[in-house]
Amino acid sequence: MISVVIIGNGNVGTHLYNAFLNVDTIAVTQINSRKLENIPQADITIIAVSDDVIAEISSKIKNSFVVHTSGSVSMSDLKNKTNKGVFYMLQTFSKDKKINFPEVPFCLEAEKESDYQLLEKLAKSLGNNIYPINSEQRKAIHVAAVFVNNFTNNMYKIGNDICNKNNVPFEILQPLIQETAVKIKTLSPEEAQTGPAIRKDKKTIKNHLDLLNKEQQKIYKIITKSIQNGN
Amino acid sequence: MISVVIIGNGNVGTHLYNAFLNVDTIAVTQINSRKLENIPQADITIIAVSDDVIAEISSKIKNSFVVHTSGSVSMSDLKNKTNKGVFYMLQTFSKDKKINFPEVPFCLEAEKESDYQLLEKLAKSLGNNIYPINSEQRKAIHVAAVFVNNFTNNMYKIGNDICNKNNVPFEILQPLIQETAVKIKTLSPEEAQTGPAIRKDKKTIKNHLDLLNKEQQKIYKIITKSIQNGN
Repeated sequence: MISVVIIGNGNVGTHLYNAFLNVDTIAVTQINSRKLENIPQADITIIAVSDDVIAEISSKIKNSFVVHTSGSVSMSDLKNKTNKGVFYMLQTFSKDKKINFPEVPFCLEAEKESDYQLLEKLAKSLGNNIYPINSEQRKAIHVAAVFVNNFTNNMYKIGNDICNKNNVPFEILQPLIQETAVKIKTLSPEEAQTGPAIRKDKKTIKNHLDLLNKEQQKIYKIITKSIQNGN
Repeated sequence: MISVVIIGNGNVGTHLYNAFLNVDTIAVTQINSRKLENIPQADITIIAVSDDVIAEISSKIKNSFVVHTSGSVSMSDLKNKTNKGVFYMLQTFSKDKKINFPEVPFCLEAEKESDYQLLEKLAKSLGNNIYPINSEQRKAIHVAAVFVNNFTNNMYKIGNDICNKNNVPFEILQPLIQETAVKIKTLSPEEAQTGPAIRKDKKTIKNHLDLLNKEQQKIYKIITKSIQNGN
């Protein structure tokens, strides 16, 4: 049996709490981050709060092993005086959306090898994709995630705007959007790249620019250049 | 029975030819675009060649109803003296990849209403998603497709580069990539947007920029601005 305390009532904390409740070998307690007076002892204490209060909250915790769940905060930013680690799940957590934990990549880090093994045991109780990731790597993953998630979604947004402006239903782009994502399961991004930029089709590129507003033109030009330069 | 001649041996022409072969109500012939001397008569003649030779090839065709398959060429760029139309399928066609025609959006256009109805009948023999789309709308769709497909793939490329540089396997981003695409089936891009840009989280944005090379920084900044401005 592993005892776990989760501090924080946000999306990550609540999804994790509910998931651990279903695991026989985990005893889990959830604590509001504003009520830190009575934290029970536990094998693993998970701080699932906003990045900017992780240091402060961790400084008030005396439990033996404390981890946070953030992609962009170093392990050393934890200010507890006991052992430290990180339990980062690379997935978007929305309030009402069920998390498919078996598919979630767990990025784990700990100061002590025995703590790492404990975190790994905990992660294995929920998922299958477990990676040892240090703080520097995790920050890089967090930036990469911004590109493939946040920025990709902005590409969808611009596609949607262009459709709206021309009275075309956005749904017409759906099969292409899904195909683009599925393709990357078997091809590298280099292999999967198609279109006027990689073909250096100047005429089509010019025609496209004529159809865009100034902001869209800037983005079109800079990404076209990125595709052509291979960087 | 609808008789169809396909001119062109490229990916689009060959996939279409093979698909029509399986339809009882279609009689299809495929012709090499360099051998235009003996084109049989047909109800619909489909020119499936590179954009820049559509005008020239169409000028040599005397069949009654001629369409092209391009997203970025106007119907009026066809130079046959008979009836004109467009049969554009919004999907990426690769040589070795099977096309799931029932999901492909067919964007149809014709000068004459009776020709449109004939094209619609032809499209319905393969697919379910059929849209009347004029030349202006089609060009807009083609640009939108560049954003959601080509440019999204470049976001994957940059994510991959960041992973490689930090010895992290790209597969770690796969669940997030797939989730990002699936999410857009039920949420609008505005609703689906998350991350430091939309939260105006300046500290995280600064940290991210510090981890990127100059080209990546330019793209990060311009897309962050686009997300924040909502354009």
